[in-house]
Amino acid sequence: MVDAASFKGRDIISMRDFNREELDFILDKATEVQPLAEKGSDLLKGKILATLFFEPSTRTRLSFESAMLRLGGGVLGFAEPKVSSVAKGETLTDTIKVVESYADVIAMRHPSEDAAVVAAEAASIPVINGGSGPWEHPTQALLDLHTMRAAKGGIDGLTIALVGDLLYGRTVHSLAVALRNYDVKVYFVSPPELRMRKDVIDDVKGRLDYVETGDLKAILPKLDILYATRVQKERFSDPADYEKVKDAFRIDRAFLAGAKKDLVVMHPLPRVTEIATDVDDTPHAWYFRQARHGIYVRMALLGLVLGAL
Amino acid sequence: MVDAASFKGRDIISMRDFNREELDFILDKATEVQPLAEKGSDLLKGKILATLFFEPSTRTRLSFESAMLRLGGGVLGFAEPKVSSVAKGETLTDTIKVVESYADVIAMRHPSEDAAVVAAEAASIPVINGGSGPWEHPTQALLDLHTMRAAKGGIDGLTIALVGDLLYGRTVHSLAVALRNYDVKVYFVSPPELRMRKDVIDDVKGRLDYVETGDLKAILPKLDILYATRVQKERFSDPADYEKVKDAFRIDRAFLAGAKKDLVVMHPLPRVTEIATDVDDTPHAWYFRQARHGIYVRMALLGLVLGAL
Amino acid sequence: MVDAASFKGRDIISMRDFNREELDFILDKATEVQPLAEKGSDLLKGKILATLFFEPSTRTRLSFESAMLRLGGGVLGFAEPKVSSVAKGETLTDTIKVVESYADVIAMRHPSEDAAVVAAEAASIPVINGGSGPWEHPTQALLDLHTMRAAKGGIDGLTIALVGDLLYGRTVHSLAVALRNYDVKVYFVSPPELRMRKDVIDDVKGRLDYVETGDLKAILPKLDILYATRVQKERFSDPADYEKVKDAFRIDRAFLAGAKKDLVVMHPLPRVTEIATDVDDTPHAWYFRQARHGIYVRMALLGLVLGAL
Repeated sequence: MVDAASFKGRDIISMRDFNREELDFILDKATEVQPLAEKGSDLLKGKILATLFFEPSTRTRLSFESAMLRLGGGVLGFAEPKVSSVAKGETLTDTIKVVESYADVIAMRHPSEDAAVVAAEAASIPVINGGSGPWEHPTQALLDLHTMRAAKGGIDGLTIALVGDLLYGRTVHSLAVALRNYDVKVYFVSPPELRMRKDVIDDVKGRLDYVETGDLKAILPKLDILYATRVQKERFSDPADYEKVKDAFRIDRAFLAGAKKDLVVMHPLPRVTEIATDVDDTPHAWYFRQARHGIYVRMALLGLVLGAL
Repeated sequence: MVDAASFKGRDIISMRDFNREELDFILDKATEVQPLAEKGSDLLKGKILATLFFEPSTRTRLSFESAMLRLGGGVLGFAEPKVSSVAKGETLTDTIKVVESYADVIAMRHPSEDAAVVAAEAASIPVINGGSGPWEHPTQALLDLHTMRAAKGGIDGLTIALVGDLLYGRTVHSLAVALRNYDVKVYFVSPPELRMRKDVIDDVKGRLDYVETGDLKAILPKLDILYATRVQKERFSDPADYEKVKDAFRIDRAFLAGAKKDLVVMHPLPRVTEIATDVDDTPHAWYFRQARHGIYVRMALLGLVLGAL
Repeated sequence: MVDAASFKGRDIISMRDFNREELDFILDKATEVQPLAEKGSDLLKGKILATLFFEPSTRTRLSFESAMLRLGGGVLGFAEPKVSSVAKGETLTDTIKVVESYADVIAMRHPSEDAAVVAAEAASIPVINGGSGPWEHPTQALLDLHTMRAAKGGIDGLTIALVGDLLYGRTVHSLAVALRNYDVKVYFVSPPELRMRKDVIDDVKGRLDYVETGDLKAILPKLDILYATRVQKERFSDPADYEKVKDAFRIDRAFLAGAKKDLVVMHPLPRVTEIATDVDDTPHAWYFRQARHGIYVRMALLGLVLGAL
C-alpha cells in the first residue's frame, strides 16, 4: 500500500521509479497542500532545502525555493557552478557529501545525464532531480500531470500530443514515461531528426498507446492536450532543416482554429517562438497556470520526502 | 483621501505617479516601521518577495531583501540575468508571468527604460521598480526624501543641489520629479554635456523652482542639501572634458569650508572619487545613514503594497 | 574571565586574537548548540546575516547560511563580486558601511590578505572572516579543533601533521596559530617550495612544539591527526617539481597501512587527488564529518557575537 511513509527519505530521480498508485498519491497531496501556497505554513519550519543548480534556471529553482518558503522552511544554495567548489575541481560526490551536512533535502539541476543518480547515491538526505542533462525532469512531469488533472478533471481517457524536440527535451522524456501509467492516447510529434529518444520508446513500448508522427496539423482535431516544447536550433546541422520544422510546429491562434474548443495548450517554458503570444489570452493557454502547479507539486514532494505530510 | 488602501496591490514604478499626499503618507509609514527594523517583525510572515535583478546591485537588492526579512517575509530571486531563463531567450513578460506564481511582490532592476512598466503590466502582483535603465529609481527618491526629513526635520523650504550626471543618472530623475511636490529651491548642477534630461525638465517645469548651472562653488553657500552623484567617465567623447568637470564637482573637506555648517551631503552610492573620504567623518556626511533609510522606506512600501500596514 | 559577554559584538578575524580559554569557550558552545542543528531554533529570529563572498566558495558560505537558518535568522548577500557594487569601483570600506545597515552580522570572504581587518574597522556590526586571501581562515581552524575534540576526546597530547601547501594555505595558517594554545606535537609537512609561511612560524615559535619536514612517510606511524591540504599546481614554476611532490603526499588506503589504527584524516576540502577515494570508507576518514562541525562552530560564533548565547 502506498502511504506517506512510502516517501519519507526517498529520492525523486526518475519517473521510471514511480507506479500509478504512487503518482496519484503525490498528485493528491499536491492538491491537498494547495491552500498552504496561499496562506503559508510552518510545516517545514527548521528544515533547510539546498538548491544546487549547475545549470541556469529561473522557474525550477525559484519554484522549489517558493515551495520551501511557503512551507516555512529555509533555503540555501547556488544558481551556477562558477560560484561553487566545482570550480576548484571537486567531484559531485564530494560536493554532495558536504552539502548534506548543511541541509535536509537537496534539489539539483546538472548538465550530466547521470548526475542525479550519482548525487542520490552519495547523499544520506533525499535528493530531488530538478533536471539532469537531456535525461529526465521528473518534477516537471508531476506538475504537468497535476495541470492536466486541474484542466480536465483527470488524465485517463485523454488524447495528448508531445510536440517538438523529443530527442533532447528532458521534460517530454519524464512525461512520456509517467503517462504509461495512465489510459491515454499519446502522439509523439517531432521532426524526423528529433524523434523520441530510444530509451524512452523502450520504456513505454507495450505500456503506452502511442504514435510517432511529424504531422501535427493532421492530429490536431483529436487532441485534448497539446504539450509544446522548444525546438532547439543548435541541434540542426543544416539551418534550412531547422527553418522548415520550426514553422511546422509554430502554434498560433489561427492554427488552433482547427482544434477542439477545450484544447489545453501546455509548455514547460521558457518558450521562444513555438507558441505565438496571440494564444496567451485564449482559453487554450494553460502554460502560465502550469507554472503555478509546480509550487503545489514541489510543496507536496518536499513535505513527503521530509516526512511532514 | 490617501490611506493604506490607496497602496494595496499597487505598483511602484515612477515618481510621476505620486502626489504630495501620497509621498507624505509613505514617508510617515517609513518612520512608523523604523522600530521594526531593529527588533524584527512577523508582519509579512508567509509572504514572498522576488528580487529580479537584471543588472548588478549591492545596495538596492540587499536593501529590499533586508526590508522583507525584517518584516518576517521570505525572499527568492536572482542577482544577474545569466542565471535566469532570459539566457534562453525568454521575454520579460513571460518571466514575470511565471514569477508571479512564485511570489507575492516583485522588486526588479533592469537595463531597459520601459522594463518596469512592461513588468507591471504583465504582473498580477505588485511590481516595485528598483531601477529601470537611466529612466527612474523611485524607491531611491523616497529614501532620499526620508533622509532629508530625518536630517532637516522637513523638506519644505530647503535649498537643494543635485550635482553630477543629471542626464543618465536615474536617481536624480526620480528625485527631481518627487521634489516638484515640495516647496523647495533646486539647483541642477552638471557639466554642459550632462544637463538634466529633457523629459524631467518637461515634467518639473512650472511646478518646481529650479535653476540649471555648472558652477557648484557659486551656489554652495546657499545649500541645505548637496546631493552628489557619480560622473561617469564613459559618457564623455573627449577624456579631457571628463578630467575638467570631474574636478569641478569633486567634494572634499576643503571645498566644504564654503558651505553652511549644517549642510547635508547625500549620495545614492556607490561613489568613486566625487566625494573625498575626508568628508566621511564630518557632520556633513549623511550618505551612509542614507542607505539605512532605504530599509525603512522599502519596509513601508512592501507592507503597503501587500496590504499589511 | 571569559564568558559570553567577552564575545558580544566582537569581530572574528584572526586566530592570533584568541587565547586558550576563549577557544575552549567557543568550542564548548559549539558542542552545546549541536542539538539545535538537528531540531532548529528561534534563537536568532529577526536577525540578519550578510554573506559577502568576493571569492567563490561552496562550503564556507553555505555553512554560514545553514548555521544562521538553523538558529532562525535570515540571510542575504552575494556569492561573487561581479554582482556587487565593487564592479562599479566602490571601495570595500564603503560596501561595508552600507551593508551594516542591512544586517546584524557579516561573514566575508575576500582575496586580499587585509580585507577582513579593513572590513572589521569599517563596520559597527561584527565581522567574521570567512577567508582572507592566503592569510587566515579562523572559523575553519575552529571547526578543525572541534572535529579533533569529537574524534579524540580532546586536543592536548595529540601528534598532528599539517600536510601540503603550508605557504599559501590559509586554513593551515589559522590552525597552526590556534594549536599553539594546546599541548600538542605538530609536524609541518610540505615540499621545500611550500614550507610554512614565515609570519606563522614567527607567531608559533617558542609556543608550539613543531618540526618542519618533507617526509610524511617517516612520521606517519606517530600521527594521531593527519591534516591534508591541496597542493596547488599553479604555484610551481617547473611542472616536474609539482609532479614529484604531488605523489609524495598522495594519501591512499595502501599508504595508511603504515599509520595508527585510529589515525584521523582531516581535510578542509575541496580535495582533488591528495586523498584517494578509497580512504573515504575507512574509519580514518573524518573530512566529511568535519564539514558538519562547521555548522556547530558557526552557530556558536553567530550566537555569541550577536549576544544570544
